[in-house]
Amino acid sequence: MNELRKDPIVGRWVIIATERSRRPDSFVLPRMVTKEKAAICPLCRDNERMTPPEIWALRPDKSKPDTPGWKVRVVPNRFPVLGVDEELIRRGVGMFDMASGFGAHEVIIETPDHNKNLKDQSIEELGEVLKAFQYRIADLHKDKRLRYVLVFKNEGPEAGATLEHPHSQLIATPVTPKRVKEELVGSKNYFEAKERCVYCDILAQEIDSGERIVYENREYVSFCPFASRFPFEIWLLPKKHSPDFCCPTTRKNIPLLAEVLKVTMQKLARTLNNPSYNYLIHTAPNRAPRAGYWQTIEQDFHWHIEIMPYLVRLAGFEWGTGFYINPTAPEEAAKYLREARV
Amino acid sequence: MNELRKDPIVGRWVIIATERSRRPDSFVLPRMVTKEKAAICPLCRDNERMTPPEIWALRPDKSKPDTPGWKVRVVPNRFPVLGVDEELIRRGVGMFDMASGFGAHEVIIETPDHNKNLKDQSIEELGEVLKAFQYRIADLHKDKRLRYVLVFKNEGPEAGATLEHPHSQLIATPVTPKRVKEELVGSKNYFEAKERCVYCDILAQEIDSGERIVYENREYVSFCPFASRFPFEIWLLPKKHSPDFCCPTTRKNIPLLAEVLKVTMQKLARTLNNPSYNYLIHTAPNRAPRAGYWQTIEQDFHWHIEIMPYLVRLAGFEWGTGFYINPTAPEEAAKYLREARV
Repeated sequence: MNELRKDPIVGRWVIIATERSRRPDSFVLPRMVTKEKAAICPLCRDNERMTPPEIWALRPDKSKPDTPGWKVRVVPNRFPVLGVDEELIRRGVGMFDMASGFGAHEVIIETPDHNKNLKDQSIEELGEVLKAFQYRIADLHKDKRLRYVLVFKNEGPEAGATLEHPHSQLIATPVTPKRVKEELVGSKNYFEAKERCVYCDILAQEIDSGERIVYENREYVSFCPFASRFPFEIWLLPKKHSPDFCCPTTRKNIPLLAEVLKVTMQKLARTLNNPSYNYLIHTAPNRAPRAGYWQTIEQDFHWHIEIMPYLVRLAGFEWGTGFYINPTAPEEAAKYLREARV
Repeated sequence: MNELRKDPIVGRWVIIATERSRRPDSFVLPRMVTKEKAAICPLCRDNERMTPPEIWALRPDKSKPDTPGWKVRVVPNRFPVLGVDEELIRRGVGMFDMASGFGAHEVIIETPDHNKNLKDQSIEELGEVLKAFQYRIADLHKDKRLRYVLVFKNEGPEAGATLEHPHSQLIATPVTPKRVKEELVGSKNYFEAKERCVYCDILAQEIDSGERIVYENREYVSFCPFASRFPFEIWLLPKKHSPDFCCPTTRKNIPLLAEVLKVTMQKLARTLNNPSYNYLIHTAPNRAPRAGYWQTIEQDFHWHIEIMPYLVRLAGFEWGTGFYINPTAPEEAAKYLREARV
């Protein structure tokens, strides 16, 4: 059974995946991940039986589950790091804290077409992918034992993708992950000091100066953050305050969100010659039953997407300090991206 | 001029290295770093003129600076991310905080011999390297503008080493890096709750159970931490409480420290077939002039070395959450390491 374990000093949770435990001689150095060929791609149309039974699919033609006809399809990860069938057990081991491997790990197959990656999808198609994210997050949030749902995409072998077919993943956890908690605490502290959302303040300054803006429309904006950890790091936010990626306003504005995301990813691909990248959605945690908790987050948190192209290798200094060295100023990165013609 | 910039939400500092600014087409994907050949290795004996003038060297034969005869040699990094000649300027940019690129970036050349890496050095030789670390940290701490000195080693191309010759590095910063601050805060909170050092408590439990111990002698112990982020992650600590890597006790115990470090690294190399790795020393920050600050750290912090072999690739989930997936339980890793014959 997999386990969650907590570092007693800094409060970081780790998943110990003992179920797929690896012997020392099994570590093939991650120089290059072998891509599975399209002919046997388990995520392609007509290969639906190669995945576990689907959780949800967009099937405009009312076709049967696990058959062709879908446009977006969600299936459990074949090698889940957390499982929905586990019981949630929290216990201490002497001074240490742990929890059972309860949670969810799903794969969102973005298109039946093996070669149609994010930037090549139409705004309508990309919108359906974003709606699938919203649908799955909202569905998982019904289980109040799940504190957080993280949606992320690994594109390209350097970014950790093991399948070429366009897909994203989600992992739902019974604890709030550390980086998310830091953002929640940071934005709460800022709100307490200023009675304003820190992200709204950042947006106001960024839009005013314009020097780090990548692309914007009426509702959404992408920019390279002032303290970018990585060259060409990009954040994408709703211009109006909104803590929750799944709220009715975001649902209504999906075409506008898809447009900014598509154009931003096209600009990134053009500027850096199709780099590997990760993106992830940081939204509010599950509404906890604790009184007042959600109310605070509602006013001080602001959902966003973080896009991180994989261009530099991290080493001991970054790991040891959480202190990143970025060789490209965000102003310069944003200028290249703004000027990229797509 | 390079800059330090602070993320306004989570307080993370980033070095924007605009001095070696990189254009989009200059990012060679970090698939494999080309190793410089020994013939032109700037860190080898007889090539002393290829480095900037040395800062310090262990020269038992009283030879002149920047000539052969040394055993350990410290030089400025040829491409420093922070510079000692910069003025320390802190300023705001609207709501953002930044500082000038003041600091230090040095290379510790561990041996004149190109092929003698850490695990092949004698305990005496390794002890001289550790003493060089202590000497440089203590020297840099004389400048009270420098808040922290991080010593780290990148070994092997996957871990970010660009030179093959055995060497470590240090970076001294005018701000306390985020990961270090988290540990300081975490251990302070623990002390306030329990009036005991959290590391001392961890050590007591680890030594008592023994299941995660790798190697120990009278004064030092190495073990795989309970919530290991990475497979075969190892921490090395003094058994007796000690906040400061440079304190007189550590100086006196250098041979015992060198023994545990050498044996641990030999076991790691044997078990995993010479993996790339990073190690780093987390010691107390510079004694700040603020009243009571050092006194607190003295009782609640405990210096340690973190060793992280590079065996798995991190992807979006880890970046987005600070929540690591580790496929090898630390109990199992420790068992392999304990049983490795060296």
